[in-house]
Amino acid sequence: MSLADVIAGERNEEGIAAAIGVLKQRFGERLNTGASMREQHGHTTTYLPNQQPDAVVFPQSADEVKDIVRICADHKVPIIPFGAGSSLEGQLNAPSGGISIDMVNMNRVLRVNAEDLDCVVEPGITREDLNVHLRDTGLFFPIDPGANASIGGMTATRASGTNAVRYGTMKDNVLSLTVVTADGQEITTGSRAKKSSAGYDLTRLFVGSEGTLGVITSVTLRLYGIPQAITAGVCPFPTVDDAVNTVIMTIQMGIPVARIELLDALSMRATNAHSGLDYPETPALFVEFHGTDAYAAEQAELFGEIAAEFGGGDFMWASEQEERNRLWKARHNAYWSGLQLRPGANGITTDVCVPISRLGECIRETQDDIAETGLIAPIVGHVGDGNFHVLLLIDQNNSDEIGKAEAFAERLSARALSMEGTCTGEHGIGQGKKSILKRELDGAMHPMRRIKAALDPGNIMNPGKIFPPR
Amino acid sequence: MSLADVIAGERNEEGIAAAIGVLKQRFGERLNTGASMREQHGHTTTYLPNQQPDAVVFPQSADEVKDIVRICADHKVPIIPFGAGSSLEGQLNAPSGGISIDMVNMNRVLRVNAEDLDCVVEPGITREDLNVHLRDTGLFFPIDPGANASIGGMTATRASGTNAVRYGTMKDNVLSLTVVTADGQEITTGSRAKKSSAGYDLTRLFVGSEGTLGVITSVTLRLYGIPQAITAGVCPFPTVDDAVNTVIMTIQMGIPVARIELLDALSMRATNAHSGLDYPETPALFVEFHGTDAYAAEQAELFGEIAAEFGGGDFMWASEQEERNRLWKARHNAYWSGLQLRPGANGITTDVCVPISRLGECIRETQDDIAETGLIAPIVGHVGDGNFHVLLLIDQNNSDEIGKAEAFAERLSARALSMEGTCTGEHGIGQGKKSILKRELDGAMHPMRRIKAALDPGNIMNPGKIFPPR
Repeated sequence: MSLADVIAGERNEEGIAAAIGVLKQRFGERLNTGASMREQHGHTTTYLPNQQPDAVVFPQSADEVKDIVRICADHKVPIIPFGAGSSLEGQLNAPSGGISIDMVNMNRVLRVNAEDLDCVVEPGITREDLNVHLRDTGLFFPIDPGANASIGGMTATRASGTNAVRYGTMKDNVLSLTVVTADGQEITTGSRAKKSSAGYDLTRLFVGSEGTLGVITSVTLRLYGIPQAITAGVCPFPTVDDAVNTVIMTIQMGIPVARIELLDALSMRATNAHSGLDYPETPALFVEFHGTDAYAAEQAELFGEIAAEFGGGDFMWASEQEERNRLWKARHNAYWSGLQLRPGANGITTDVCVPISRLGECIRETQDDIAETGLIAPIVGHVGDGNFHVLLLIDQNNSDEIGKAEAFAERLSARALSMEGTCTGEHGIGQGKKSILKRELDGAMHPMRRIKAALDPGNIMNPGKIFPPR
Repeated sequence: MSLADVIAGERNEEGIAAAIGVLKQRFGERLNTGASMREQHGHTTTYLPNQQPDAVVFPQSADEVKDIVRICADHKVPIIPFGAGSSLEGQLNAPSGGISIDMVNMNRVLRVNAEDLDCVVEPGITREDLNVHLRDTGLFFPIDPGANASIGGMTATRASGTNAVRYGTMKDNVLSLTVVTADGQEITTGSRAKKSSAGYDLTRLFVGSEGTLGVITSVTLRLYGIPQAITAGVCPFPTVDDAVNTVIMTIQMGIPVARIELLDALSMRATNAHSGLDYPETPALFVEFHGTDAYAAEQAELFGEIAAEFGGGDFMWASEQEERNRLWKARHNAYWSGLQLRPGANGITTDVCVPISRLGECIRETQDDIAETGLIAPIVGHVGDGNFHVLLLIDQNNSDEIGKAEAFAERLSARALSMEGTCTGEHGIGQGKKSILKRELDGAMHPMRRIKAALDPGNIMNPGKIFPPR
């Protein structure tokens, strides 16, 4: 499928004009049709062209979201929910135009139920702001996809990140949602109970649906006590294989590592250059253990023994927060330092996830593939889950490079599928992976399409995403 | 809503006769229309009347399931998937007649991927048989709903049980499914990757859908390493409140207990009588810790300190398997020993789940309620999740008692909802909780109905379950 197919959409000019007129009356200054505002709300994190919405509206309550959805539904106008703008597969583009609903003002913490280890938030709050809010409760929300994403966006893309290996993904940490569906009704998908067998799991259906089934208006999240002890470590390895074999054995032995991240040699070189560090420029694992003092120490020791078996070199360990932050800086800056490997280049990041027994093979073949393309592309991974990313550094104006990057990403996805994995561990489908999704899910596309049609018969909810043209 | 409404259904006599004819030709002896076979396949675990299917068929492969579904779809005949027959809310009844698909012969372990901590099984295998099969791998499947249920049935009802507090529910432990949908196609809902953001989460949609969206033909499950050390303990408490407060603090402190079960004084009396034990006849907590030797011991000690604060009495501890089994016998036999409190009575078990901060209040009010009804009804609970069961002992032939039990169960569910909980933590809706589900989910019933209609337009998949009459 060509790029054109991925992003093509038809516009309902008349409806869009009419809806904007009504929205303008209803929202005044909070409806913005300025060019730069619209451009910011199109997609900006891939090689996909920026496809702007026709207007951006800033609701302040669920009732306002209902009004927006009803107005758009009346006029058959696309709706694109917008959180922090950090999604990575074109989820925010408006191929058929329409209205971007920016949730920035719906960023309140509605309740913290410390005794139940949960909270209720509006979708626009970012994960960092949530954790600042929680600071005095002794609790935290662990999911960390890297970017300071919004909770609504993380829910919509089924995000995860560095400590999913211990705390799960958004699928595991959303207890319930309120959602405005395409008919303008707000529904509640669950309760605050820790578990339930009451009817279809609508919560999990909306988690990861990328705005194509409704607009999230609040999220009930699980929280966790901040661990008594956190021990972090960095360990260099002779080869990626050695590092990955260490990961595999760690997971197979059931060592409850809270984070276990791979940076390849190129990423380590980038981070040294970018952050003025002097790590060995070989593949490395960044790990973290959470628990009581004795436990974190015990687990770290066990991990150290495994690493040593696979040639892991001198560990750097840290327990105090400041030291840990210093140690993890390389990992946290991996995206930005990676970009510096080719100043001026655009970074396109793609991700796959495979069963852990195939992880070494998958990364090895991917490194060979990168070498053949001649692209610069460091690899970092949430390897405890079998999930890794390739950051492709390309010249956005060079169509040859874009073509190479696209073909590479497609081969990478196909490789993951051939190893019983998935084309995306955490970024979602958006526009970029629609054709490969069809390959991955095959017959299951049919019930997915039926569900989409049943809940959004007018196809106004983020159209042009997830489903490839038939 | 009256009982009659709950269970009413219309029969398609002509279609049923025609489908049985075709199935008989196709399956011969494996299609059974005998009276006792049919009665066994109607529901037998509640006060709901037994509503038999018209025939029971025993497929041996997914292809045979496809044939059965196509034949039934052609003739508009209901399909009721049948596992071990241990569901508790009338899930297996055939209010409109139809064909029960008994999965007993589809009980193979198709693959064990020890290195990836997963396996693929047919739906008819029971959890105990699966664990016997896994014995030599050092792995186990932890979900334990009490009954030796089938994996397919556990998936369909989103089962959990004693160690969900540590290992999650079926929602968390099913990686992927194959399902034959109402159009006779077999779909695969996911991959073996640990996590994915690829499209709608059909896996979680089918988990807990109680056979109303399709027939499960295989289940890919997460497995876990058998812990190095398991420490089990039983601790008596002066009151249920003291026990529950101990649970709340344990969970809030993040102590990773693997099991934490409450038995009330009546249950303890029953178990002493039934199993010839001499536990104190006061409320008790049964706990278990999994981990390394040092860790299990450390956690057990922390728990002991909390219990002591709330008046917890002399602990009995056990680490060796035989001893642990003896200790847990009381818990495992709670259902059977409870029944002996009133010989000849029928046991009706109901469950709710609330946020843990409301658990003490919910159990206290429920005990008062039981006292007022005059019914005998011991309470046991997976209290770490806020989930508990009431075992109502009633005379099945006494309509006054049935009425009391029904009214009690409805009050119990309403109480859970008023405390932001759910009407069922793990038993599902079936026929018994349809009206209360409507109260719980309210507006969300609408998208649920739309999904049902989209995936099963002929309403042949286990009709009469989950959805109340409009």
